[in-house]
Amino acid sequence: MKIAIVGAGAMGSRYGYMLHETGNEVFLIDGWKDHVNNINNQGLIVEENGQIKKVKIPAMLPGDAVEIPDLAILFTKSMGLEAMLKSVKNILGKNTKVLCLLNGLGHNETLEKYVDSKNILMGVTLWTAGLAGPGHVVLSGDGSLEVQNIDPSMEVEAKEICDVLNKAGLKAHYSEDVIFSIWRKACVNGTLNSCCTILDCNIKEFGELKQAPQLIRNIIKEFSDVATKYGVELDVEKVANGIEAIYDPSQAGEHYPSMHQDLIQNHRLTEIDYINGYVSRKGKEFNINTQYNDLFTTMVHAKEQLLVK
Amino acid sequence: MKIAIVGAGAMGSRYGYMLHETGNEVFLIDGWKDHVNNINNQGLIVEENGQIKKVKIPAMLPGDAVEIPDLAILFTKSMGLEAMLKSVKNILGKNTKVLCLLNGLGHNETLEKYVDSKNILMGVTLWTAGLAGPGHVVLSGDGSLEVQNIDPSMEVEAKEICDVLNKAGLKAHYSEDVIFSIWRKACVNGTLNSCCTILDCNIKEFGELKQAPQLIRNIIKEFSDVATKYGVELDVEKVANGIEAIYDPSQAGEHYPSMHQDLIQNHRLTEIDYINGYVSRKGKEFNINTQYNDLFTTMVHAKEQLLVK
Repeated sequence: MKIAIVGAGAMGSRYGYMLHETGNEVFLIDGWKDHVNNINNQGLIVEENGQIKKVKIPAMLPGDAVEIPDLAILFTKSMGLEAMLKSVKNILGKNTKVLCLLNGLGHNETLEKYVDSKNILMGVTLWTAGLAGPGHVVLSGDGSLEVQNIDPSMEVEAKEICDVLNKAGLKAHYSEDVIFSIWRKACVNGTLNSCCTILDCNIKEFGELKQAPQLIRNIIKEFSDVATKYGVELDVEKVANGIEAIYDPSQAGEHYPSMHQDLIQNHRLTEIDYINGYVSRKGKEFNINTQYNDLFTTMVHAKEQLLVK
Repeated sequence: MKIAIVGAGAMGSRYGYMLHETGNEVFLIDGWKDHVNNINNQGLIVEENGQIKKVKIPAMLPGDAVEIPDLAILFTKSMGLEAMLKSVKNILGKNTKVLCLLNGLGHNETLEKYVDSKNILMGVTLWTAGLAGPGHVVLSGDGSLEVQNIDPSMEVEAKEICDVLNKAGLKAHYSEDVIFSIWRKACVNGTLNSCCTILDCNIKEFGELKQAPQLIRNIIKEFSDVATKYGVELDVEKVANGIEAIYDPSQAGEHYPSMHQDLIQNHRLTEIDYINGYVSRKGKEFNINTQYNDLFTTMVHAKEQLLVK
């Protein structure tokens, strides 16, 4: 299958590599020039369990892509999605399936502006990856993903895509309700990312706070209230329990959430507008009280203004 | 006049020194042993405009005070007030006037448990001072204070106290509505202290945030809603404008608020329960929405748990 990885950072490089290894015709599209050049000049450096290999996969800047793939997997940052879709719309053919694996909420709304809904697949990935530098991806740990078509008539095609991903070892499951899974994952990000960022702590430290249980339930409650407008029923207590299981240091406890890494450690803008900010905006639209998400959105934006130069 | 300074940290030492210099019989009461010992062994070191003098003023631990003063000026930290009042209740005679100059809200309620309301004077001070070490106070800048009796029949006595303070150069004004002034000052602390603490920034940096205007108005609005229950009318816009005047670097702009100094710089507990926390508690009591103060109280307490060992 001809597959474009659109946004080939850490995760995109992982997916691209794994799909390339099982015989797919993969090409990587990314806006970071040094990354693209290094991949083309020396191959993608893949580091896994201390072993390094160099893999020949073509890479290009968004404007330079011309071939129309069977599948495009989107892995941009949330705030870069729309600009990327504009840059690559020439290669999104009328049969190109577009699988969106971004974190956060509302991306399907953006996608529908550029892609026929028949071709849109939404997904949630639990894989991880890191970049050691331009052209150098580091893989560790295990993962899986869920995929579903948003047009009910496209189930067969979505399952075919799952098969391709599975052959590459990506452990894809066809989901009966991927939108629920996206909301549930957004709750994890909407609590741990925002709280650890504003309090400047890791997940374990946050979990030990006596304020944590009530705080995450207050935030999740607002996600849940907004989610019902999209036909998604989130059980606040169940979602909270799922998050609390992550506090364990043997899980992700010692880990600083990605938003903390972005903003506090690397002084980069965050995805807050696609997590708490989305709930806050939709709260206003639907006249739902989302005071916790409003204030966390405000505070993270304030912190961005202080730290991002 | 015989005057006890109850809580003789930086500000108490300033007041004690200035009142001592104009012939009052002053003694300092404080719970910090090294501070008390240094003052007794070498005198209170007073540093002002680069000049240093040593001033003989008796100092003692709370339990060691026996003389009954005409006036006790309270300068403890908010959370230490009640314990201090218990420790010194033996020297609060039936004619001892007690002037409370603590920051924060609700101290009159605590005082009334230990002191006849006829003897209670409430005040707001705009002086500043710092401690360079135990027994060593640093004075800079100008100030003033407002004082008022809480029992309407005690106006003459309150004005006499004002005279004594004025003779010492403390620029005391008899206030017609000190409770209003206390609330207005609490709004300054309830916005700048909490926001600069959670965002880890100084007053100027906070003032430059595009989120600042709305954020302080949302917080002040809740102070105002609760204040009306105490017969205090705070005009949100006027209070906000007063706070915005402080952003100027020629005012306090480059300054980190005391709560930031306490918690972020020195890892000490804060007075949050007597500022935003008071509004939050009273909001619950009166069934008033105080969501901003609730969440800032929660976040500051969470930050205390992370930083105070």
